[in-house]
Amino acid sequence: MATWLLFLVIKKRFFLKMNTRDDIYMRMALEEAHEAFLNDEVPVGAVVVCGDRVIARAHNLTRTLHDITAHAEMQAITAASDFLGAQYLKDCTLYVTLEPCLMCAGAMAWAQIHTLVYAVRDTKRGYSLISHYPILHPRTQIRHGIFADEASRLLVSFFEKKR
Amino acid sequence: MATWLLFLVIKKRFFLKMNTRDDIYMRMALEEAHEAFLNDEVPVGAVVVCGDRVIARAHNLTRTLHDITAHAEMQAITAASDFLGAQYLKDCTLYVTLEPCLMCAGAMAWAQIHTLVYAVRDTKRGYSLISHYPILHPRTQIRHGIFADEASRLLVSFFEKKR
Repeated sequence: MATWLLFLVIKKRFFLKMNTRDDIYMRMALEEAHEAFLNDEVPVGAVVVCGDRVIARAHNLTRTLHDITAHAEMQAITAASDFLGAQYLKDCTLYVTLEPCLMCAGAMAWAQIHTLVYAVRDTKRGYSLISHYPILHPRTQIRHGIFADEASRLLVSFFEKKR
Repeated sequence: MATWLLFLVIKKRFFLKMNTRDDIYMRMALEEAHEAFLNDEVPVGAVVVCGDRVIARAHNLTRTLHDITAHAEMQAITAASDFLGAQYLKDCTLYVTLEPCLMCAGAMAWAQIHTLVYAVRDTKRGYSLISHYPILHPRTQIRHGIFADEASRLLVSFFEKKR
């Protein structure tokens, strides 16, 4: 009984810790998305964390750079790789406010990202629309739904403004 | 009968013209792949053509830049977009020596590339492994098989050298 209680306490602490970390870093990704919004870019933000260190922050810059590949995730992966001087991000977690598209998920597969955390699902262009093919690396862990409402509200505001 | 003959002549000339163009630009893409080979990079090259103008040439730079997203196609798309000052490449043809992966095909879908021409199929990471989902833009035309042997030989030589 005591062992069982101890297990429950550890499990709760572990999840609390994970949630707190996810909250902190997804909040940063949302700040990046806000920055994109202010610059008239589709408001998506991303953060790469390695251990307890934020090694890259980025937001969507497709209009600013006239480059459709300049999604937040692509730039975050490039910046993180540059920081580490390594092609693979096997010990890193990528936080992003919108579910990655196929291009970005493909990049994450190549980078062998350890964990992907995204806020809101992209029901039109999200990589999970392809359900029976392993788009991400088989070892990549996935969590989603953190700050989904906030991320979604920002996107809805942006596209309403554009109409 | 005369109309039918005229049709056949025009059809033959059209295809001859297409083949000649494809040969010229795929040869350039192969030159880029050779350049990658000499720099100890996976030998893949890409060229973007708009009208009769080559607006971007690139080769794989993943090792040199420590960036797993630095595939030939990604750089060619970014360079072409920069040249045109536009996010979309609706009138452009992209030539590449190896079938694009999911990341690169996803980028081409966003860029709405008019035509994709690739040399050799990638049976392990090629986008066409996903057959029942439209990875590329629905309007994108596809041709392949031009200089497939040359492109393949270069890749085989590279990986044999690495063993």
